[in-house]
Amino acid sequence: MSNLFLDQTYLFTPGPTPIPNRVNAAMARPMIGHRSPDFSVLIEEVATKLMPVFGTKHPVLALTSSGTSALEAAVVNTVAAGEHAVVIVAGSFGDRFATIAENYGVHTHRLNIEWGKSCSPDELAAFLDKLSGTPVKAVFATFNETSTGVLNPIHELGKVVRKKTDALFIVDGVSCIGAVPVDMEADQIDLLVTSSQKALMLPPGLAFVSFSDRGLEAIKACPERRFYLDLNRYVKAYEEQKSTPFTPAVSLIAGAREVCTMIEEEGWNHVVERHTLLRDMMRAGIRGLGLPLLTSDEDASPTVTAVQPEDIPAPDIQKALKKDFSITIAGGQKKLKGKIFRIGHMGYCTPFDVLKVLSALELTLAKLGQEPQLGVATKKAEKVWIQHV
Amino acid sequence: MSNLFLDQTYLFTPGPTPIPNRVNAAMARPMIGHRSPDFSVLIEEVATKLMPVFGTKHPVLALTSSGTSALEAAVVNTVAAGEHAVVIVAGSFGDRFATIAENYGVHTHRLNIEWGKSCSPDELAAFLDKLSGTPVKAVFATFNETSTGVLNPIHELGKVVRKKTDALFIVDGVSCIGAVPVDMEADQIDLLVTSSQKALMLPPGLAFVSFSDRGLEAIKACPERRFYLDLNRYVKAYEEQKSTPFTPAVSLIAGAREVCTMIEEEGWNHVVERHTLLRDMMRAGIRGLGLPLLTSDEDASPTVTAVQPEDIPAPDIQKALKKDFSITIAGGQKKLKGKIFRIGHMGYCTPFDVLKVLSALELTLAKLGQEPQLGVATKKAEKVWIQHV
Repeated sequence: MSNLFLDQTYLFTPGPTPIPNRVNAAMARPMIGHRSPDFSVLIEEVATKLMPVFGTKHPVLALTSSGTSALEAAVVNTVAAGEHAVVIVAGSFGDRFATIAENYGVHTHRLNIEWGKSCSPDELAAFLDKLSGTPVKAVFATFNETSTGVLNPIHELGKVVRKKTDALFIVDGVSCIGAVPVDMEADQIDLLVTSSQKALMLPPGLAFVSFSDRGLEAIKACPERRFYLDLNRYVKAYEEQKSTPFTPAVSLIAGAREVCTMIEEEGWNHVVERHTLLRDMMRAGIRGLGLPLLTSDEDASPTVTAVQPEDIPAPDIQKALKKDFSITIAGGQKKLKGKIFRIGHMGYCTPFDVLKVLSALELTLAKLGQEPQLGVATKKAEKVWIQHV
Repeated sequence: MSNLFLDQTYLFTPGPTPIPNRVNAAMARPMIGHRSPDFSVLIEEVATKLMPVFGTKHPVLALTSSGTSALEAAVVNTVAAGEHAVVIVAGSFGDRFATIAENYGVHTHRLNIEWGKSCSPDELAAFLDKLSGTPVKAVFATFNETSTGVLNPIHELGKVVRKKTDALFIVDGVSCIGAVPVDMEADQIDLLVTSSQKALMLPPGLAFVSFSDRGLEAIKACPERRFYLDLNRYVKAYEEQKSTPFTPAVSLIAGAREVCTMIEEEGWNHVVERHTLLRDMMRAGIRGLGLPLLTSDEDASPTVTAVQPEDIPAPDIQKALKKDFSITIAGGQKKLKGKIFRIGHMGYCTPFDVLKVLSALELTLAKLGQEPQLGVATKKAEKVWIQHV
């Protein structure tokens, strides 16, 4: 049969994610000057309304750039060439954090974790113990490792860092901020960065940053050279003029305001609960089909699920979903390339969307030669859902 | 009388500039994954179709960030700390180029030009002569100095650089690329950067970069540390995979494709002619009102006009245009603050838009106490226009 989906395509990558129509409409409103009073109102509203999402008492500042620049900003504003840093590497994005630090001449101590597992507080404690005597300036962690679908226990890791060292605790929140609860103070996080195109329901192009009092002091004191990514400039422009130091992506920030309104309307605690439900539905459905999950329930991310099929190559499933169902999911990265597929379920995503992917998977596995299991995954997922209806 | 403009506001700043509806529509199309074949087609189309606009035989690469990062990329990819560079400083953005170079420890030789004037080839030649014996790695120039409305004679300056030195010639094209002709080969330009929110009719959030063969070699050889702004990564990702090294601003790039289509439809030579006409109409109208222009006709930018009123403070005119006519223009920057106002006329701008501003200026000057000159400026501008009808 010909394509049944008219002009529709279904985006289930772990970023970018679908954009709500009302956010598109907000971004298409007439352009305004970035040095106008209207823009000051806009940036202040976004900086303030994102505070509960970041669990911070400081404003959330926007950089016009994507996630990697947020990681780079986290590095070049806190550690200088020759200083020591620990980076937890549990996947592709932990590796990127470490690569950036190494690129800038930081003595980078990689705490390597098996891909698909989280970093336990004990592992971190033991690693820091071995480094006792080394002046570790900062510990870098990935909150949600997009490449494996693992959510690291940031709350416990933060406690270990503070107990064992004087180091800053710096967190890449790229693929989970906007979907999971976080409390920068309680979690001992000194710098938390994310980008726009994941749980925050925006196109790529913005990075967001917030900091603790300690983090702010470290940013001010850091001697490393930087200009566009110099967070001091963003702090100063915001504090003094409710502005940005350089031309910001005005339309994306207008979209961010609409996203903040949507989060308020849904209720932040409901946003978090929804993502937990989406994860539980997805995992129940995948399990129902007999497909192995890469991660344990304990480590599982609420925003992305990684599946490691045994009988059919992961790329074949990914290709068939695209061809027959207009569904885009993601493959594995680096050492997991060809071995897993990943389904994003964050941001503008509902339980019906989970059912959509699971239905398509049921049909796809049957078409690829497996014993048909039509309705099996969706039933499992609905059984999870009904407990919340 | 109450506001007569319904929901309309009129943006005449020299960036951001108004966004065409069809570009907004293109940016609001469903989000696509940035590692999908669709995105590769998109980025290649933009990289190729912008080549005539940049006058380059190399693809035009997109960075997700704004203009200042493009300037920073131009610096950190070509000169390293301790090397020598010349920066032509004829206004606020030349000053920014120099500040970035100084920030990175480059021995920065500022060729200071009076604000409101262009840098003449003779001035540059004399400056380079005085530096003979100093190994100047690069000469940085601002093509169109947004802060003063001056278009520097890039073609002649490039010849001087090549004749006098082995230095790279690196050009900030931020507020004119997309409005003025340029030929990187003939003009001896090794690296040319711009941003999206000026003549290219897009929201802020993208920077564009192209290079010469020599420029590309220099980028490859430059030892300065950089990561997000490392142009080698962008070149490699484009050459090998028609991709980007980091998550790009997908929606803005989709908008850029629509802009390329609009430029093709209008015809690139007509785009250039239109901007020349807009400039000539604006200057004729302003002169008709007896308001002094900051720049000579020879130096005048086709994209922004700076006016230095004598009898009424410039900020008063700017405020009245905003309050009574919903028109946003720009004021002066740094040493010209409070002394001039600037009108942008680039990108999605027609002769009717110029007449709109001139009408509002006629009414504003009368309201601020001057002898009424209603219709005077528009008549002068129409006299210019009619020669092209």
